[in-house]
Amino acid sequence: MAKKKSVDWQIIDYIKSLGIDMINEAGSGHPGIVLGAAPIIYTLFSRHLIINPNDSKWPNRDRFILSAGHGSALLYATLYMAGYNLTIDDLKNFRRKGYKTPGHPEYGITPGVEVTSGPLGQGLATAVGMALGGKILQEKSVLPKEKGMFAKTKNIFNFNVYVLCSDGDLMEGISYEAVSLAGNLALDNLIVLYDSNNICLDGETKKTFTENVLDRFAALGWYTQYVRDGEDIDEINNAIIKAKRTNKPSIIEIKTTIGKGSLLAGTNEVHGKALDKEDVEQLKQQLGINSEPFIVPEDILQAFRKKIMNNIKDKYDEWVNVYNKLVNNNPFAFDLNLNPVINIDINSINWNFSPDLKEATRITNGEIMNKICELVPNLIGGSADLASSTKTYLKNYEDITAYNYKGRNIWFGVREHAMGAILSGLALTGFRPFGSTFLTFSDYLKPAIRLSAMMSLPVIYIFSHDSINIGPDGPTHQPIEQLTSLRTIPNLKVFRPTDAHELVGCWDVILNNNYPSCLVLSRADINLLPETNSQNVKYGAYIVRNEKEKLDGVIIATGSEVATAYYIANELYDTKKLDIRVVSMPCMELFLEQPKEYQEEILPIGYKKVVIEAGSSFGWHQFVYNSKYLITIDKFGISGTKDEVLEDCNFSYAQIKEKVEKLLG
Amino acid sequence: MAKKKSVDWQIIDYIKSLGIDMINEAGSGHPGIVLGAAPIIYTLFSRHLIINPNDSKWPNRDRFILSAGHGSALLYATLYMAGYNLTIDDLKNFRRKGYKTPGHPEYGITPGVEVTSGPLGQGLATAVGMALGGKILQEKSVLPKEKGMFAKTKNIFNFNVYVLCSDGDLMEGISYEAVSLAGNLALDNLIVLYDSNNICLDGETKKTFTENVLDRFAALGWYTQYVRDGEDIDEINNAIIKAKRTNKPSIIEIKTTIGKGSLLAGTNEVHGKALDKEDVEQLKQQLGINSEPFIVPEDILQAFRKKIMNNIKDKYDEWVNVYNKLVNNNPFAFDLNLNPVINIDINSINWNFSPDLKEATRITNGEIMNKICELVPNLIGGSADLASSTKTYLKNYEDITAYNYKGRNIWFGVREHAMGAILSGLALTGFRPFGSTFLTFSDYLKPAIRLSAMMSLPVIYIFSHDSINIGPDGPTHQPIEQLTSLRTIPNLKVFRPTDAHELVGCWDVILNNNYPSCLVLSRADINLLPETNSQNVKYGAYIVRNEKEKLDGVIIATGSEVATAYYIANELYDTKKLDIRVVSMPCMELFLEQPKEYQEEILPIGYKKVVIEAGSSFGWHQFVYNSKYLITIDKFGISGTKDEVLEDCNFSYAQIKEKVEKLLG
Repeated sequence: MAKKKSVDWQIIDYIKSLGIDMINEAGSGHPGIVLGAAPIIYTLFSRHLIINPNDSKWPNRDRFILSAGHGSALLYATLYMAGYNLTIDDLKNFRRKGYKTPGHPEYGITPGVEVTSGPLGQGLATAVGMALGGKILQEKSVLPKEKGMFAKTKNIFNFNVYVLCSDGDLMEGISYEAVSLAGNLALDNLIVLYDSNNICLDGETKKTFTENVLDRFAALGWYTQYVRDGEDIDEINNAIIKAKRTNKPSIIEIKTTIGKGSLLAGTNEVHGKALDKEDVEQLKQQLGINSEPFIVPEDILQAFRKKIMNNIKDKYDEWVNVYNKLVNNNPFAFDLNLNPVINIDINSINWNFSPDLKEATRITNGEIMNKICELVPNLIGGSADLASSTKTYLKNYEDITAYNYKGRNIWFGVREHAMGAILSGLALTGFRPFGSTFLTFSDYLKPAIRLSAMMSLPVIYIFSHDSINIGPDGPTHQPIEQLTSLRTIPNLKVFRPTDAHELVGCWDVILNNNYPSCLVLSRADINLLPETNSQNVKYGAYIVRNEKEKLDGVIIATGSEVATAYYIANELYDTKKLDIRVVSMPCMELFLEQPKEYQEEILPIGYKKVVIEAGSSFGWHQFVYNSKYLITIDKFGISGTKDEVLEDCNFSYAQIKEKVEKLLG
Repeated sequence: MAKKKSVDWQIIDYIKSLGIDMINEAGSGHPGIVLGAAPIIYTLFSRHLIINPNDSKWPNRDRFILSAGHGSALLYATLYMAGYNLTIDDLKNFRRKGYKTPGHPEYGITPGVEVTSGPLGQGLATAVGMALGGKILQEKSVLPKEKGMFAKTKNIFNFNVYVLCSDGDLMEGISYEAVSLAGNLALDNLIVLYDSNNICLDGETKKTFTENVLDRFAALGWYTQYVRDGEDIDEINNAIIKAKRTNKPSIIEIKTTIGKGSLLAGTNEVHGKALDKEDVEQLKQQLGINSEPFIVPEDILQAFRKKIMNNIKDKYDEWVNVYNKLVNNNPFAFDLNLNPVINIDINSINWNFSPDLKEATRITNGEIMNKICELVPNLIGGSADLASSTKTYLKNYEDITAYNYKGRNIWFGVREHAMGAILSGLALTGFRPFGSTFLTFSDYLKPAIRLSAMMSLPVIYIFSHDSINIGPDGPTHQPIEQLTSLRTIPNLKVFRPTDAHELVGCWDVILNNNYPSCLVLSRADINLLPETNSQNVKYGAYIVRNEKEKLDGVIIATGSEVATAYYIANELYDTKKLDIRVVSMPCMELFLEQPKEYQEEILPIGYKKVVIEAGSSFGWHQFVYNSKYLITIDKFGISGTKDEVLEDCNFSYAQIKEKVEKLLG
C-alpha cells in the first residue's frame, strides 16, 4: 500500500497539476520546469518567503523572481494557490489577452510578479538590482534607537531577494556580470535557487555548458551549496536556511529532472511544448490527482496559504504600523518614499548659467546632477567604469561598497548590460536610478533598456560622447545608428539637449514623469545659445531662432547640431538674406505626442525643412519632403582629428552650410 | 654603475618609447597599457609568434589579438618594429585620417591587425571564434599520409591564437560567454595573456572587480597560470611555453603596473591621456632613450626582426610550398579555400517547390540550408540554443565538440553575444559562418553585429520568429524595433523574404557577396505566392502583383506581410475594383542602392503608397507621403493568441484591409 502523501507533497503535486492543466488548455507553454522545479518553489513559498499575498506591494516583502520566465505556468499556479489575487479563470486563460497570466511573467499585470522576465539572464540581473536596493534601503532605514521598535532587526527594510534560475540564465553574459558585481558588493540578501537539470532547449547541456557552476560562483565571491535531489524538500529547506545566514550572496544548485513524471522526463522534448493527452493522463495518475483539470481541493489551498501566512505571523501588521508612524513623523521619511515620481520644481534652483558658457553637455550635466541630487534623495546610480568621462559622479556622496551601502555612487564596472538590468531592479525597489556609459555602448545594454521600457520604469540612462565628433577614438566609439535604435524602443523617451538650458528642461521633464529616459550628451564644448530654454523641452521641439521677416525654410536639429544650425542660419541671413527658422528637437517622442496644431505651428506645412543630426537618417524622413533634405550620417565614421572626421562624414560647418544654402536658398 | 641593458630590454624600452611618442604627438591615447604591457607583447612576439611580417595574411600565421584595443599605440609600435608594412610616418600620424594607425585597431587598415577591437570583450570573443576556426581547419587539413610532408604536425593548419586582454575585457559579459564556450570546446590553441594591473578607468579595480579571475577560468575549464612580475620576461616566456603544451585553453594572469615608469604609474590617471612633458622627459631618462621622438636605432629594429624571423625559420617557405601543391592538386583543396566569396549558382539546385507549399520560412530555410551546405563547404554555424526553433541545424553533419572538430554544427549555448563575435572570428579564419536566434534577441548580439559590419565580414545572422504574430510568448519575445535597429547598422544587409522563392534569392545574393547579412524568418506558415521569385531579390524590391488596368496605389511590404498585401490587393480588386500594385521589398538596403530609374519604375512618383510591415515605422517614411500611409507597429505587443495579438496591434487581415481601402480607395 502506498504511503500516505504528506501535505507538502499534496500541495506540490497540485502545483504541478495546475501548471500542466494551464499549458494544455493554452496548447503551448513549458511543462519541463513546472514538473522539475515545483518542489523548489513550494519549499521557498511555504517555509521562507516573507510575503503577504493580500498586499502584494508590501514594501518590505521578500522578492521572488522567476528568471527562467518560460516557467510562468509554475509561477502562476503557485501564486494562485498561495492566495494572490488570481482566479482559476486566469489560469484557464493562460497566455490569453486580458488575463493575469501572460506567456511570460509581466510586471504590472500579475500580483506577485516582481519583474518582466523571459529573455534569459535579465531576471537574475534585475534581482541583483533589487537586492542592492534592499541593502541601500536597509542602510537608510535604521530605526531611531529611542523608539525601541524592531529591536531585533534594527532596520525597517530587511527583505531578501530569491531567484529561481535555469541553465540558460547562467549561460548569458549578463548573468555573469551581475553575479560578479553582487559578489563584489556582498549582497547577502540575495539567494539564487538554480534549477540544474542538465538539459537546455536544444538538448543536453553537456554539449555546450560544462563549466563548474558552483566553482564559478565561488570565484565570484558567492556562498555555494549543492542539493543532490531536487525532490528532497528538507535538504532544499536546510540549504535556504544556511543561505540566509551567510554574509555573501548565495547560490544553491539543485539537481532536478526536467519534466519529472512525464514520459519525456529528462529530455529537451519536455522543455517547451504541451504534453500529449496520454502523457498528461499517466502523469495525473502518478500524482494521484483526478484527471479533470483545474480542480484543487479547498483544504489543500488553505493548507498552503496557512503556511505562507505563518511565515509572516505578526510581522506584517507590526511593520505597517511602524512604517506609517515613521513616514508620517520622521524627517527621513522622504527617503523612504517609494513613489518614484518626485514632484520637484527644478526651476527653484538658481542655475545662473553665464551667457558665455561654452561647455560640453556632459560636464554641465554633471554639475546639474550634483545639484539636483540634493532635492531627489532617491536619485542614485553610477557608471560602467566611465564616470571619469561621462561626469555623472555625485561628489558629495560616498561610494556604495560591500558592507557600506550609505553612499549614492555605484561602481558598475565594465558591465553595461548588467548595469541596465540592475537599474531596473533599483527602480523596482523605489529608486530613481541612473547609469552612464558612451552612447555607442548603449548597444551593450539594449535588451535591458527594452525591458525597462516594457515595465515603464523610471530609469535614467545617460549616454555621453554622442556623435562622430569625438574624433580620434574612431568608428568603434562613434555612434551612428544608436539614437535611432533607442528612439524606436516603445515607451522610451530619448533626450538630446543642446546646452545647459535644455539640460535643465530635460531633468525637469524626466523627474516629473515616470517613464524611462535616455539623456544623450556631447563630449565637445557647445556655446550656450541665447534662445534655448528649459520650459519648452516638454513639448519635444520648439523654435530657437525665429525668421525675421519671411520664412525661407526650417532647420530641425538636436544636441550640438542646434548650435551649428543656429550659427549657419544667422550667417546665411547676414550674408545671403536667407531667413531660416531653427527648431531644436530635444525629444522627438514628446514632439510627436503634441497636438497637431502645435506641431504645425513649429513646423509649418508648405515650407522646406532640413534636418541636421549627426546620426542615422531613419526616423527623420517624416519631417522633410524627401531624403535630400536630410543632413545625417548613414555610414561609419573614421579615426582622425575631430575636423577630419566631420569632413569625412560631410559634417563640417562649411559642408553643412553649403548644403543648407543649396536646399533652402 | 648601471648594468648594461640586455637586447630584450632595449627593444622593450623602444616599444614603450615609440608608443609614448605616438600618444604625445597625437595628443591623445592610452599610455598606461603601453608602459605596463610592453614586456608581455615583446616576449610573445620575440619568442613565440609564428608570423611572417612580410606576409601578414599567411593563412597559418599565429593570430595576435589586442582585445584591450585602447592599447593601439603599443600594438602599432610593436608591429612597426617587428617589420610589418608600417612606416615611421604612420606612427607620427597616430589617430589621423589616412594612416595605418587609427585610434583603435581596425581590421583591413593595418597589416598585423587581425580584428577591429576597442569595445571591450569583443576581441577576446572574436579570438575564440578564430581559435575554433583554427581547430576546424586543422581537422579538415590532415595531410595525406603518402605525402610524408609536415611529418611532425600532420596538419597544414596548426596556428595558435594569442590574446592580450585587460580587466575591462574580463568584466564584460561577452567575455564570460566566450570563455565558457572555449572551455567547453577545449580550444587548446587559444592563449590569453591577461594584463592584470588592478586599475580600471575610474580607479582601482577593487572597487568593483574583486572576483578571483583564475579560479573563474579554472571553473570554466581553462588551464590557468600566474606570473607575479610583469617585467620578468623569462617567467612570462615559461608560462607561454606551458600554455602551448596543455590540452585546454590557457590564461596567464600577469601582474603589471599600469603606466610603469610614469610619475602617475599605478593610478587610473595614466590610463587614458597623454603624459605631460615633464613626465615624458623623466621617463625617457629612466629608459636611457634620447628624448628626440620617433627614433629607433637600426640595430634594435634588426635585432627584433631577426628574433621574429627566427621563430619561423624555414616553416613559412615549407608551408607555402605544401599548401600550393595541395590547393592545386588535391580534392579537399576547396575546403581550404580561404576566399569567403563562393561563386555558386544556387539556381542549379532543383528546388521544385510545390505551388501549394504553405510553410514558415524558418522551416523552408532549414531545408534550403541543408541543400546549400553541400555546395558551400565552408558554411558552418549553429544557434544560441534555439536550433530546434530556428531550424538551422545541418542534418548531415556532426556536432562540433571538444576534441572533435570535424562537424559543421556549433552549439553556441544561450550565449548570443559571444555567438556574434565568434561568427566574426570564424569569418576571419575563412569560413562562411551563420548563427541563429529569435529576432527579438538580436539585441543581445548587436555590438558584435556592428563590428562585423565595420569589418565587412561575410557573416550570416539568421533571426526567426520575426514579428508579433508569434502570439502567446508575449512582448518579450515579439520583435518591434529590431528590424529598424538592424537596418540602421551601416554596411549590413537585412533580408526579410516572403516565401521559399525569395529565400532562395536571398541565399543567392548572400553567398555571392562578401558583406554581413541578416536573414529574418517567420514562425508562422506563409503560402508560396505565384509571383514571387528568386531572381529579383538582388534588386531589393520588385513587383509581385501588377495593377491590371490602372494604378490606384502601391503597397510595399516585406516578409509575411507581402502575402497579406497580395491577398488584400486581389480581394479589393475583385470586390471594389481597386487596382493595387504590390511590391515586395526583401532588402531595403539593396533597393536604395538601385539606380533612380529602377526605383521609380517600381515605386512610381505621383501615386499613393502604403507600407505594411509588422514592426517600427522608422525608415519607412521615405517611401510614403506621410505617416498615415504606414501600417506599422510602434508599441509593444501583448501575450495572447496570434489573432488576439494581431488585433491588439491593429494588424489583423480585416484591420489592414480596411485601412488600405481607406488610404487607396
